[in-house]
Parts: sequence; structure tokens; C-alpha cells
Amino acid sequence: MIDKTVRMNYLFDFYQELLTTKQNQYMSLYYLDDWSLGEIADYFDVSRQAVYDNIRRTEAMVEQYETKLRLFDRFEKKQLLLKELKQLVQNNGRPQELMPLIEALEKLE
Amino acid sequence: MIDKTVRMNYLFDFYQELLTTKQNQYMSLYYLDDWSLGEIADYFDVSRQAVYDNIRRTEAMVEQYETKLRLFDRFEKKQLLLKELKQLVQNNGRPQELMPLIEALEKLE
Repeated sequence: MIDKTVRMNYLFDFYQELLTTKQNQYMSLYYLDDWSLGEIADYFDVSRQAVYDNIRRTEAMVEQYETKLRLFDRFEKKQLLLKELKQLVQNNGRPQELMPLIEALEKLE
Repeated sequence: MIDKTVRMNYLFDFYQELLTTKQNQYMSLYYLDDWSLGEIADYFDVSRQAVYDNIRRTEAMVEQYETKLRLFDRFEKKQLLLKELKQLVQNNGRPQELMPLIEALEKLE
């Protein structure tokens, strides 16, 4: 199980286009730029609680998008298959070894 | 440019999880099962106009999701790269030929 911050970084990356400007700003400062809730609250002149609530709601929202679209899950599976494929190619794998991986990639989404 | 029905079939497939039950039902009957607007209207006991409006709104919605998430666009690019990769593997391509395609796939999303 990966760390929550790492997971949120990925989910935010995949679903940020579906978020509002404010959600994007708070999530970006909190998760990408590592600001504290207090710093974000001061910057936007709102309460710490308001920032906290907004971020928690956004986290729940991107988790829900992930449940529905599974972009991060598919991305991880794709990267694993590509890594395996790369290693096989580097070791001069034969077509019958490479082909099942390519077919698995085709079926992935 | 692909046919609108084909495009909608794909977009519906990619984004159906984000639609309501009713949107899913109408789109599925109209695009996948090829029912007419009138048949859908009769079946659900609503006006033909209501079905038409709902489907047009849903089409606009999935197009908007595509603008934001580009799942279909990425899918097409992925399939093209995989097709090329497959052909190279079948023709016993060398690692230095295969690797750029694998790297392009890694960067795709």
C-alpha cells in the first residue's frame, strides 16, 4: 500500500481537470507544494477549517472518480507491463515472449 | 474523422460510469442497441423530445469529459503504438527499434 500523500499526488494529477479552480489551488498547494493548512488559510484569507473541509471533500471526490474510472489503477498496471516488456527487449526476448505482454497492454483499457 | 455514432460509442464506453442511471439507459439503447428516439420514449413513457434532449445533453457531457481527460484520444494513440510494436516484433525487430515505441507508450499518460 503506497503512502497516502503519494496516492493523492497521483489521483490529483489524473483528475485535476474535473476539479474547480479553488479545489485545484488548495490541492496543489497542499500536496504538490507542501504548504500547511494554516499557510493556505492565511494566503486566501479563510479559516483553517474551511481549507481542511475543502481538501477532505476533494480527496473523497478524486477517490470516487478513481473508483469509477480507475485511471491510476490502469496506469500502474500499464507501467508494470511496460517495465517487463522493456526488460525482455533488452535481453533480446523472442516474439513469442513479447507478444503476450503487448496483447495484455491492448486489453488494458 | 470517424463517424459520430462510432465516436459516441467509444465516448459512452469511456465515460458511462460518470453518467446517471437514466443517461446510461437512454445512451445504451440509442447507441448500442440502435433503438429510435420514439421507441425509447414509448418504453419509458416519456415524450420523444425529453429523450432527445437528454441524449443531446449527455453527448455534450461526454464530449466535455473527453476534452478534459482525453481517454479516447489516448486510447487511439496507444492502440497505434501497440500495432506498430506488434508488427516490429513479428518481423523480429531489434531492441533499438522496439525501445522508442515502448518509451512513447510510457509517456502516453
